[in-house]
Amino acid sequence: MTVRYLEDFAVGQTFRSGRMRVDRERIKTFAAEFDPQPFHLDEDAAKNTVFGGLAASGWHTTAMTMRLLVDGEFKPAGGILGFGFDELRWLAPVRPEDELQVESEVLEVRPSKPRPSHGHLKVRNTTFNQDGEAVQVFTGNLLVPCRPK
Amino acid sequence: MTVRYLEDFAVGQTFRSGRMRVDRERIKTFAAEFDPQPFHLDEDAAKNTVFGGLAASGWHTTAMTMRLLVDGEFKPAGGILGFGFDELRWLAPVRPEDELQVESEVLEVRPSKPRPSHGHLKVRNTTFNQDGEAVQVFTGNLLVPCRPK
Repeated sequence: MTVRYLEDFAVGQTFRSGRMRVDRERIKTFAAEFDPQPFHLDEDAAKNTVFGGLAASGWHTTAMTMRLLVDGEFKPAGGILGFGFDELRWLAPVRPEDELQVESEVLEVRPSKPRPSHGHLKVRNTTFNQDGEAVQVFTGNLLVPCRPK
Repeated sequence: MTVRYLEDFAVGQTFRSGRMRVDRERIKTFAAEFDPQPFHLDEDAAKNTVFGGLAASGWHTTAMTMRLLVDGEFKPAGGILGFGFDELRWLAPVRPEDELQVESEVLEVRPSKPRPSHGHLKVRNTTFNQDGEAVQVFTGNLLVPCRPK
């Protein structure tokens, strides 16, 4: 894995993560702690909701996506330091036993005026399931250090 | 707590959550599972990073915010069903022992054309710490059922 400084990034570069299996019990325990709503907690209760069955909390999906990013080939020097992101969409439910993978595409690279030692990276992260269906997409805004002189 | 249908929401309404104490060990175990980077895992390693000390993963903050929302006075009928959100910003680090609270403000209420039984709500959710400092803000897009005829 190559660690990259701001100068090593260019618009259009893409990076892939490994894969993560979504555990049925972890969907429920994550929801019990952070998003205790019937469609994330219980198969039967979920049937009669818009999800039509048990689905992971969107915040569980963002968290799993982050883990895939940290372990993947996208390696900014100093770590993945997001100060926020633009539009996020949950496009399809994430189900027990789904296998998630993230693809990241660099959309923008620019120096930081207030902080000349760093720059900003805009990266679109799309999370796919095992059928190649996009389940989530968001564009992250990252702080990346410039190569030390 | 009043459960609200689309017709019960109006632009400018605000809702408050209860408070949640941020647990030091949970910062680390959440990070170990979902965002294993030094500034979220270890006090000493975090000192020499932009955070200047241990800070919760932003994804932990979003998850805690969701729990505060689910338990708070903002109660759309059918639950809090986000299909995504606009711009999210992490504005300040979340530290061990911080006490978080969320304020939600309704920005937009509109019927759904493809799904006449439901409508869309745009809600800005700001998470504050015990000093009244905003640590995170995002605008969620929610699906809310209309009042049954």
